[in-house]
Amino acid sequence: MTPFQLQSVSEAADDIRRLISEQDLAGASARLTPLSVPEVVELVDRLSIEDAAIVYRLLAKARALDVFEALSPGTRGDLVGALRRAEVTSLFAEIDPDDRVWLLDELPASVAPQLLRGLTRQERDLTAGMLGYPHHSVGRRMSPEFVTTHPQLTVRETFARIRAALDSAETVYTLPVTDARRVVGIVSLRDLMSADEEALIVDVMSDPHVAEVTEDAEVVARRTTDYGLLALPVVDGEQRLVGILTIDDAARILKQEESEDAARQGGVEPLRRSYLSTPIRRLVRSRVVWLLVLAVGATLTVQVLDAFEATLAQMTVLALFVPLLIGTGGNTGNQAATTVTRSLALGEIVPRDVRKVLSREIRVGLCLGLLLGTLGFAIAGLVYEWHIGLVVGLTLVAVCTVAASIGGIMPLAARAIKVDPAVFSNPFITTFVDATGLIIYFLIARAVLGI
Amino acid sequence: MTPFQLQSVSEAADDIRRLISEQDLAGASARLTPLSVPEVVELVDRLSIEDAAIVYRLLAKARALDVFEALSPGTRGDLVGALRRAEVTSLFAEIDPDDRVWLLDELPASVAPQLLRGLTRQERDLTAGMLGYPHHSVGRRMSPEFVTTHPQLTVRETFARIRAALDSAETVYTLPVTDARRVVGIVSLRDLMSADEEALIVDVMSDPHVAEVTEDAEVVARRTTDYGLLALPVVDGEQRLVGILTIDDAARILKQEESEDAARQGGVEPLRRSYLSTPIRRLVRSRVVWLLVLAVGATLTVQVLDAFEATLAQMTVLALFVPLLIGTGGNTGNQAATTVTRSLALGEIVPRDVRKVLSREIRVGLCLGLLLGTLGFAIAGLVYEWHIGLVVGLTLVAVCTVAASIGGIMPLAARAIKVDPAVFSNPFITTFVDATGLIIYFLIARAVLGI
Repeated sequence: MTPFQLQSVSEAADDIRRLISEQDLAGASARLTPLSVPEVVELVDRLSIEDAAIVYRLLAKARALDVFEALSPGTRGDLVGALRRAEVTSLFAEIDPDDRVWLLDELPASVAPQLLRGLTRQERDLTAGMLGYPHHSVGRRMSPEFVTTHPQLTVRETFARIRAALDSAETVYTLPVTDARRVVGIVSLRDLMSADEEALIVDVMSDPHVAEVTEDAEVVARRTTDYGLLALPVVDGEQRLVGILTIDDAARILKQEESEDAARQGGVEPLRRSYLSTPIRRLVRSRVVWLLVLAVGATLTVQVLDAFEATLAQMTVLALFVPLLIGTGGNTGNQAATTVTRSLALGEIVPRDVRKVLSREIRVGLCLGLLLGTLGFAIAGLVYEWHIGLVVGLTLVAVCTVAASIGGIMPLAARAIKVDPAVFSNPFITTFVDATGLIIYFLIARAVLGI
Repeated sequence: MTPFQLQSVSEAADDIRRLISEQDLAGASARLTPLSVPEVVELVDRLSIEDAAIVYRLLAKARALDVFEALSPGTRGDLVGALRRAEVTSLFAEIDPDDRVWLLDELPASVAPQLLRGLTRQERDLTAGMLGYPHHSVGRRMSPEFVTTHPQLTVRETFARIRAALDSAETVYTLPVTDARRVVGIVSLRDLMSADEEALIVDVMSDPHVAEVTEDAEVVARRTTDYGLLALPVVDGEQRLVGILTIDDAARILKQEESEDAARQGGVEPLRRSYLSTPIRRLVRSRVVWLLVLAVGATLTVQVLDAFEATLAQMTVLALFVPLLIGTGGNTGNQAATTVTRSLALGEIVPRDVRKVLSREIRVGLCLGLLLGTLGFAIAGLVYEWHIGLVVGLTLVAVCTVAASIGGIMPLAARAIKVDPAVFSNPFITTFVDATGLIIYFLIARAVLGI
């Protein structure tokens, strides 16, 4: 190492200490860029272990791997320990998601699982955030405590590996088979038990299902349970193993997602604790925002009715059918939205099926509208008069068709703009359909009654 | 065997052949009652194997076990085969649930799993019905392909059992430990691998979680995933092992139940196939019944408005707020119902918590009503006039309180009368709350405006 290099490292260390104390991670990252791998190794040794951890986390993936391998084993351990520390993780937790993309690269597959090992589920979620795995990604929920085997190992050698990991591994029933950390196969303990002890793993392993670490946790969990897999290997962008998702964790993820979906469908923010142990003010808070949004939306209906007030004053009888007509529209819209939302969640349809869904919902809505409209015409006609019956009947046909179409398309639109379809919840659709239904009603009334 | 016995058996055989051909199972059961076990064995040998299977199925549990053990091994095999046959299972499938209770006792634990083995999931469900396990019970969904061990066996001997069952067993990772068929413990393959080969199972096994065969499949599935169990032993009324529920089957059950719940919450009958492959007429059928029920319910609102028509004619401005007010009531009711329904499904609350739920929902509804009511008073007062603002504000307070209470109690009432709470779906609550809200609105309007 030349004196010049040493001086540049020493200057870099001073700059970086200052930048970190100012929480200027972007500046620190820029200051690191011109340094060579040996210079970074030197730098890491000169900084406090917390600052070293921050510096390390700012390195691009390829450099991070080279640096890690050049460190002494002791420093490696200290570094992993420091990366886990609350001060360090919370610093990275605050990074804006947009900055995260260019500031934090994936960590090498040799470091990432080490970092997550031995943590509780909560600590793991927090620490996985620092690894750059997005919110709701399977990277936040996977376990790093896996046992692997190699294609050229024998069954007997693999059993020895399993025995050594019995106390720590999340599961020993499904083993990813890796070569240079890349997942090349999967083998179950059951396969191993029925195989010859001297057989090579390459001859007993099967093709693996894998998940990418940035995939949505719910999607991966559903795939795990749909295929009835006991565990699914999770890989990084280079197909290197970084974790494993077991079926019991998958079931836990799905349970939580179902609770959240059910809550949002009803226009409530999901509760964190059980109903009876949630304080009243939290219950109120979980509902009030949506209720306000919906009430503001509902002022649309006041404006529509205000615009038609003259018509209403002339024919008060028209007011009688308002709740029935908009209620039926809301129900039809909800039915369509419920069916489509569920199909989306199960992966039966995707946003580009929008034309198919629209054409089906128009036909379903028209059928329902014709059925209800005929009934409405007959009953309203008999009880009031035939002109009124005609208005009610025609409105039901039109409202059902429009409501089913809107209800069917809304969840697809939500998914297309990357919003949870359940957020365009049933109350939301009801409010939207209400105003539309009123306009249709009064336009038909004016046309038929000539007012 | 005396000639007298032989004659009585011969007569019984004739009678029973006739009763079975007339599908009079109750009569056949009564004719069997006076016969001794050796007589029944004799009878089984004289009948066609289908009739023999029907006779066998009508025996009380204790007698069925004695008869089975007295049969020759060949006849046993034929009998189990015949019990599975479509003609036989369909005969029992048609029995009225009320008759089932006294006509069909549980089958002995030595026969039941044999009967279910080697069947597809659909065949198993049908055949399990004949065993007397109710619809939606875990008995319909469990697997009979289990491996067991005994407390006094060694770990080495247990491994031999597992190896012998590798091809057939549903799971080899969780083994029920049984003594005289009763479940006394549970041991995981992982426990076995970490134990000494000569250790006794009694020293490595843990206390078992078990499910009763008649328990609701969804409840058992939720317990399995909540505890993160890979498999749960299923026992009959005498704690004898009859099957096992694996976590992947549990996940499958929960997925189906969630789909059904989500559909019902939206007022749709669950679809059997995927959305895009379901014909339009089936989509219409899945929605039309609920839509009609709700529309009939909504005629209540027409009647309420009709009763207040004079008031409406005097003050047309009152009509403007109808959709806003009943919409807000509906939303508040749905929010409460969604939260309570979900808590019920998760087992956080039970029907007898009705007073706690009511007191919480009254308070939550009142808070929400005061918030929205203040806003409504201010806005309607500014835009229209202060009297109207007062009517709107007071109505919001009252409607939110009433709607939250009704929405919170309805799911509990449904559960108390053994109806799926999701059936009292959100649209149902909306319709109910709509009419109530209108009455409140006009009563307040009359009082405040003095009309």
